[in-house]
Amino acid sequence: MDVGFIGLGGMGRPMVANLVRAGHTVRVWNRSPEPVRAAVADGATEAGSVAEAWRADVVISMLADDASVRAVLLDEALLAGADATVHVNMATVSVALAREAADLHAAHGIGYVSAPVLGRIEVATAGKLNILASGPAALLERVEPLFAAMGQRTWPLGDGPEQAVITKIAANFMIASAIEATGEASALTEAYGVDSGTLIDLLTNSIFPGVVYSTYGAMVRDRRYEPANFRLPLGLKDVTLGLTAGFDARVPMPFAGVLRDQFLDAIAHGDADLDWGAVAEVSRRRAGLPRD
Amino acid sequence: MDVGFIGLGGMGRPMVANLVRAGHTVRVWNRSPEPVRAAVADGATEAGSVAEAWRADVVISMLADDASVRAVLLDEALLAGADATVHVNMATVSVALAREAADLHAAHGIGYVSAPVLGRIEVATAGKLNILASGPAALLERVEPLFAAMGQRTWPLGDGPEQAVITKIAANFMIASAIEATGEASALTEAYGVDSGTLIDLLTNSIFPGVVYSTYGAMVRDRRYEPANFRLPLGLKDVTLGLTAGFDARVPMPFAGVLRDQFLDAIAHGDADLDWGAVAEVSRRRAGLPRD
Amino acid sequence: MDVGFIGLGGMGRPMVANLVRAGHTVRVWNRSPEPVRAAVADGATEAGSVAEAWRADVVISMLADDASVRAVLLDEALLAGADATVHVNMATVSVALAREAADLHAAHGIGYVSAPVLGRIEVATAGKLNILASGPAALLERVEPLFAAMGQRTWPLGDGPEQAVITKIAANFMIASAIEATGEASALTEAYGVDSGTLIDLLTNSIFPGVVYSTYGAMVRDRRYEPANFRLPLGLKDVTLGLTAGFDARVPMPFAGVLRDQFLDAIAHGDADLDWGAVAEVSRRRAGLPRD
Amino acid sequence: MDVGFIGLGGMGRPMVANLVRAGHTVRVWNRSPEPVRAAVADGATEAGSVAEAWRADVVISMLADDASVRAVLLDEALLAGADATVHVNMATVSVALAREAADLHAAHGIGYVSAPVLGRIEVATAGKLNILASGPAALLERVEPLFAAMGQRTWPLGDGPEQAVITKIAANFMIASAIEATGEASALTEAYGVDSGTLIDLLTNSIFPGVVYSTYGAMVRDRRYEPANFRLPLGLKDVTLGLTAGFDARVPMPFAGVLRDQFLDAIAHGDADLDWGAVAEVSRRRAGLPRD
Repeated sequence: MDVGFIGLGGMGRPMVANLVRAGHTVRVWNRSPEPVRAAVADGATEAGSVAEAWRADVVISMLADDASVRAVLLDEALLAGADATVHVNMATVSVALAREAADLHAAHGIGYVSAPVLGRIEVATAGKLNILASGPAALLERVEPLFAAMGQRTWPLGDGPEQAVITKIAANFMIASAIEATGEASALTEAYGVDSGTLIDLLTNSIFPGVVYSTYGAMVRDRRYEPANFRLPLGLKDVTLGLTAGFDARVPMPFAGVLRDQFLDAIAHGDADLDWGAVAEVSRRRAGLPRD
Repeated sequence: MDVGFIGLGGMGRPMVANLVRAGHTVRVWNRSPEPVRAAVADGATEAGSVAEAWRADVVISMLADDASVRAVLLDEALLAGADATVHVNMATVSVALAREAADLHAAHGIGYVSAPVLGRIEVATAGKLNILASGPAALLERVEPLFAAMGQRTWPLGDGPEQAVITKIAANFMIASAIEATGEASALTEAYGVDSGTLIDLLTNSIFPGVVYSTYGAMVRDRRYEPANFRLPLGLKDVTLGLTAGFDARVPMPFAGVLRDQFLDAIAHGDADLDWGAVAEVSRRRAGLPRD
Repeated sequence: MDVGFIGLGGMGRPMVANLVRAGHTVRVWNRSPEPVRAAVADGATEAGSVAEAWRADVVISMLADDASVRAVLLDEALLAGADATVHVNMATVSVALAREAADLHAAHGIGYVSAPVLGRIEVATAGKLNILASGPAALLERVEPLFAAMGQRTWPLGDGPEQAVITKIAANFMIASAIEATGEASALTEAYGVDSGTLIDLLTNSIFPGVVYSTYGAMVRDRRYEPANFRLPLGLKDVTLGLTAGFDARVPMPFAGVLRDQFLDAIAHGDADLDWGAVAEVSRRRAGLPRD
Repeated sequence: MDVGFIGLGGMGRPMVANLVRAGHTVRVWNRSPEPVRAAVADGATEAGSVAEAWRADVVISMLADDASVRAVLLDEALLAGADATVHVNMATVSVALAREAADLHAAHGIGYVSAPVLGRIEVATAGKLNILASGPAALLERVEPLFAAMGQRTWPLGDGPEQAVITKIAANFMIASAIEATGEASALTEAYGVDSGTLIDLLTNSIFPGVVYSTYGAMVRDRRYEPANFRLPLGLKDVTLGLTAGFDARVPMPFAGVLRDQFLDAIAHGDADLDWGAVAEVSRRRAGLPRD
């Protein structure tokens, strides 16, 4: 397929490589030039402008947040002049932006698919992402070969632009909740003389296997939150997306409310450059446990 | 080894069977007679009284809660007349009771080991429990053959009576937190048209593998919380053990505070006989989602 | 002084009447015509358009929320063509909007004063409002005669557009907290057989005198939340303004997080048209107390 | 009336003085001797033992908490040998203890009245306490002359031992909530450049008059929490009495849950000897506001 790909961050780069490897033609655009050169070395073509990327049949975008999507893609002139007939937005954006984007695309006769992913950079590199997809069924079917090139499984979640987005937001909320629970449990047991490393080993080797508890458990055990794979303010952003979506749909979310305050506390104490696993330190600090 | 075993509930029975199978002599006592007959059929001997069970070298008890332990075991006359030199308490009790029990045993020259377990009835039957143990190192070493007969791994957590207990309380708090997070996430996504079954399949097949999310995820997906393996009021009891221990050690636990209110809400709405997974229904109800 | 007044809701009308009574010339504009006729009967002049209101020396606006302020007043052409040299915005708006508005006015050489008020319609009618004011000191001094006509006291809170706004948001947060505390206390005591009316009488006649506890206490006592003086969704809006401002300044606000969920619960249960005092019913409902 | 009075703390002393002044005969007992000497100087008689105080017709006790009441008064031998036919317990105790005490008194044919008070030492001195009373109506009537000597008003709250106690617990919960709301509001406004003193002046001179907001507002304004009239751990004790009573009656209390964590945070940070108003500092600290 002829694909325009916009946004070559840590995730976008390996996704492009996998698309090329699967035989697709990919023209790439990125704000900064280095990732473009790398993608070209992988077999992609450089698009001279965003508009040129939209000459392809399908556009995939993998940008950071609402603001980037709005700045780069929600542009009447761009959409009016596009050849592409479907846009697959793989960023984690707000429900409101997903809906606004779908409407704007529809007004220009362009199909819109929401498709955020679960998986970090190494998972993207291995082509093993879980792809959360929602949008019109015919469009999902059409872009499935692209999903197949990037992921191990596509999860169809509904026919609107919001279902995939809210599911990604919910998944991130659950990760944040797992971190916070680990932090509170760890502070509690440490206050009674249990070594955090033992607690984490026990949990991850019994009732809580899997990447989330082992990744963040190791951070809590070692009290090491650098280098940051996912910084605290990004985590807070996603918790806030959940709170806002819950607000709009009248869904109380008391755990999300607690998370918000714990993240704010962490950031107010100077931890904004740490991985969001560092929210576990808030429980230690509030309990007056030694800082080291 | 010559073992007295007190408390033949759903967990105690298979634990006795595994002790017998490993070659230990086990005299059992239980308040009601039927489980005793079953244990005798498995090769155990009946103790005519609690005191008779204390004629063994080691006493293991597996009772329901603080009140049962206090009623059956914290008895000056019983301890004064005991032959046993070590008592392994495998119940989930409060930190305060564990400390009080250890002191009382010490006053009568009896060693005290805390050893609650992770694992449900089928895990106990398979002899695959994770055993959380704390107490004097020499005692832990001495009873390790008994642990080996009942569990797949013993986790030594410290030399006091409290470390094993607080770790079990922390683990149950983390399970409750996982249920609550699933409930909030499920209410949120359902409000935006995502089927809960799909959400659960997605999560348990990607970032949240393991018995906790699959067990409670299935309950939330099917909205079926009967038969109850672990009833709501027991879950609330364990959350409260965590809050009380946090209180005594000055550890704020905002997630535990939320859990307390959600459990109370569930019980106030008539769900006391359901499995504690039913706490997820509170999020649905508060959001005004359809009850059926 | 020559004053343009925009927004003749329940509060704006008596404020205009008091300005006229104090000898000021007031030209009024309102989206719907009836309040304009009433104001003219009180001695004001009708402005044919918003722009005409801006022919005055000073413009006062009293609109509902951010959206109305943005729609009616944040208009480049309007500000470019204005004769007025100062705008006093008396609405409860977000900190972000206050700052944006101040910048936009400055770009057109117009001074900007934030001046939300404490007091309901009857207080406005009596000219007894407490006026929370912030902005450049010279401007505050200049418009003080107008404040003196509408209020019993002006509280200068700082020289930026945000201080008066955040203080009003904080005051409303404190009112909401008082309602919630009353609701929880009332549910607790009723569960033990204490009549809510007696509780309220006791509190308001002893440690909690004043308009807040007596107004909302009476609602809780009588379980009557209509007619609504301040509807639940407006209350939730103000709580959310506090949460957002707290977010931006990294101030955890756990009470505000609880309030958010309680308001959402109330609205999800169909109480959106009731006074925000009805948030007290959430505590009753969660406790399973009889609905009638 | 012939009164035995047990417990001459800061509150008990002026209460005895007012009883004597009203013409009652009062024999006093206290653990430490100095307050007894002072009371004798005021016209009371010294009781050589607790039992001697129980020779009076009516016994009033004003002890610190459950533990003191249990240690001094819940004594089978004492009650069996008592001449007094009614005991008025004016301490703030738990609902559970009030019920247990009433049952124990009934078993010895002694009437039991719960009568905690609202008001601090200076209010007790002025004889202006608000007395919250519950118990059998005939007993309340009988001891009303004693209440009249100590208070400005008696609030009859029910015929059981629990209603007066739960109402006092609820009132203290509401005070704690007012402090916490003030703390959060103050941190929020200070983060935007509003002086806390101005905020407090504004609130206490407008919508929040009365002793609670002015007393604790002044502490927050001056950031001075010594000398402590009511220490943080006592405040936490009362919040916990509310949580426990809510637990038993299945009443979720999210504000009380937040308060619990804020008090624990304060105590964990070394503020246990400060007045409970110091819980407001937790909001400042969590927001990273300057400590001085």
